[in-house]
Amino acid sequence: MTIPLSAAPETVRGPAEHDVRTQIIEAATAHFSHYGYDKTTVSDLAKAIGFSKAYIYKFFPSKQAIGEVICANCLSQIEADVHQALSATAAPPEKLQVLFTVIVESSLRLFLQDRRLYEIAVAAATDQWPSAQAYQARIRKQVEDILKEGRASGEFETVSDLQMTSHAVYQVLAPYLNPVTLPHLKALHAEHPQALQQLVLRSLAPQR
Amino acid sequence: MTIPLSAAPETVRGPAEHDVRTQIIEAATAHFSHYGYDKTTVSDLAKAIGFSKAYIYKFFPSKQAIGEVICANCLSQIEADVHQALSATAAPPEKLQVLFTVIVESSLRLFLQDRRLYEIAVAAATDQWPSAQAYQARIRKQVEDILKEGRASGEFETVSDLQMTSHAVYQVLAPYLNPVTLPHLKALHAEHPQALQQLVLRSLAPQR
Repeated sequence: MTIPLSAAPETVRGPAEHDVRTQIIEAATAHFSHYGYDKTTVSDLAKAIGFSKAYIYKFFPSKQAIGEVICANCLSQIEADVHQALSATAAPPEKLQVLFTVIVESSLRLFLQDRRLYEIAVAAATDQWPSAQAYQARIRKQVEDILKEGRASGEFETVSDLQMTSHAVYQVLAPYLNPVTLPHLKALHAEHPQALQQLVLRSLAPQR
Repeated sequence: MTIPLSAAPETVRGPAEHDVRTQIIEAATAHFSHYGYDKTTVSDLAKAIGFSKAYIYKFFPSKQAIGEVICANCLSQIEADVHQALSATAAPPEKLQVLFTVIVESSLRLFLQDRRLYEIAVAAATDQWPSAQAYQARIRKQVEDILKEGRASGEFETVSDLQMTSHAVYQVLAPYLNPVTLPHLKALHAEHPQALQQLVLRSLAPQR
């Protein structure tokens, strides 16, 4: 398990401590997934892992700092799924379809499969933790890059403002990136899983 | 204050009791907006209004039945705003813009302005109360009617499947109808309030 650079870099206190950090994160992930994030204190966690509270604080300044790393790990799994699927895709319209499909499927799987870790994802999205903000910014950039590529290749229209249109496409996708909003849209998505992406692709098609 | 037909009709026990019901609803709305919906019991409410608990139960079988009426009143205010704005609009593309604009503005105002009544709206959306379901169905029908009208007038494309496209347009709008998802999308919407509706209108435009 690697610690993404996006996860609260001020909590990283040197590579020599990497193994202990990993050990704490793995134990905390298991502990939170059994007992929940909201109700667990750093004292509970210390007891469960068999470390002193002071020792844990040497590596992580707060419970949120631990949650941040777990959250960043979860989000980087979604992004790994996205990148893997995109690497097998060349045409920008197909890339956009893949982005929509994988984001939704992977988010449903990772956010909703484990109700206890779900609490961490909810805290991250609600309080806009740095890991959640960085994730959203990267997906937003991904959308813009695909739009640029499609405009350059003539597969997307070039009449509308790029910034505005990128924003709009990201705004359509955004509710499916967020563990709080996702459950409220799950049933609607399941009715016609391709409907949104087809609407977006028709919107981006050049006028003939 | 009128009681919409959509609001749990089984709780209506005759028009003669209309005034008492209205009195209870008005007192409950004021009470919930001070003390919150979640933490208030029917006993608290009875004490505050000066009625016996048994008397309130004569008119409403549960706290949720009272919440349902308050929720339906709130939703019918949003719909009244929508209908008023639509009545001043003739062309289907403009109607769709009006629908998006008014739904978002009116929902932001009604759901988020009163944090205590917000709890009722959240319960209604999360547990899918009949009032919330009926509201969503009516807005969905509204979207489909505008699309049909625009297809008939030649202002919208007729190539895509009507059901699928209506579904997609409604799915873009849905996160803004829901008091739980709305706060998570508020900032994104505020960046470019017209972006979503312009994306949708470009998608519906006939190919030239």
